[in-house]
Amino acid sequence: MARRNPERRAALVDAAIEVLAREGARGLTFRAVDTEAAVPPGTASNYFANRDDLLTQAGARVYERLQPGEEEISRQQAAPPDRETYKELMKEVVGRVSSFRTGHLALLELRLEATRRPELRAVLTERVRADVDANVTYHEASGLPGDATAVKLLILAFNWLITEQLTLPGVFSEEERNALIEAAVDRVVGGAQT
Amino acid sequence: MARRNPERRAALVDAAIEVLAREGARGLTFRAVDTEAAVPPGTASNYFANRDDLLTQAGARVYERLQPGEEEISRQQAAPPDRETYKELMKEVVGRVSSFRTGHLALLELRLEATRRPELRAVLTERVRADVDANVTYHEASGLPGDATAVKLLILAFNWLITEQLTLPGVFSEEERNALIEAAVDRVVGGAQT
Repeated sequence: MARRNPERRAALVDAAIEVLAREGARGLTFRAVDTEAAVPPGTASNYFANRDDLLTQAGARVYERLQPGEEEISRQQAAPPDRETYKELMKEVVGRVSSFRTGHLALLELRLEATRRPELRAVLTERVRADVDANVTYHEASGLPGDATAVKLLILAFNWLITEQLTLPGVFSEEERNALIEAAVDRVVGGAQT
Repeated sequence: MARRNPERRAALVDAAIEVLAREGARGLTFRAVDTEAAVPPGTASNYFANRDDLLTQAGARVYERLQPGEEEISRQQAAPPDRETYKELMKEVVGRVSSFRTGHLALLELRLEATRRPELRAVLTERVRADVDANVTYHEASGLPGDATAVKLLILAFNWLITEQLTLPGVFSEEERNALIEAAVDRVVGGAQT
């Protein structure tokens, strides 16, 4: 019978993210999660039906933890919906995702594992596509300049910029990364300069 | 003493790329490479100083195999250096990289392994930065529209587009991917429409 303590479950899923980032998908075992979460051996196996269940919950949890806080959303909504605000918003998003280093690395491990596991691939595909669509919807409601294509192009460019920063941080300097974020918004969003 | 048959060496490095893509960095052992290359056990260990040597040679080999052929370069040089040519060129590049599926997946595995191995990180950083700079230099010599920033932004966007296609192919349809490539060139390159 699956155990039901939600805090314990969240702690185990968070531990799985750390194990994924550090050891790779192949290192993710129930035993490694128990050790990472500092709980008695056998605990994780009581909370997850199998390894696929743990992998998909780890992926969902990364997205959950990457949501902006209420304070950040309020601040964005109070700012004028112009291109400068868009740039600041994108710098915040890139900064937020990059600072959850193990989360982004765990998602990359899960993507690679998805090439070997059709069920994981199906769940991740649905989650990533929902995230793209949510970004488009959020953008359209925001009044910020640019269209759905711009949102998708920025997602592509910034996902790789973050991947570059977290895996090979010496390829671009911080100054170059910031300049690339500003140039991406300027060029991709289009329309009149503000 | 290291063995010197260059064809045998190349076959072993190619086998390492396949093992990396299929099994992940943790699955890359000399024994797995011997099996993949269908050579006697112990062969790979005669050709590479250690596992790091094999990993870095696999990374270098992916870049080598991704170079365009002479026929493709001649065709590009004969085309008018305008935005439409740029779009066709980018579709060819994305198609060429995507079609070497195991190469791109192996590079992603190497990037994740680089977070754990400083020597591999140093070698890959140098290789990836050299590739960015070579793309900028090639672009400047081509007479195609756009600047160095455009080249870098397209590298970012298309690397993630390829990653998406190879790991979660259901997120974007082929039609959507082609539209994103065209829109990326149109918007990022800037300047007058052709």
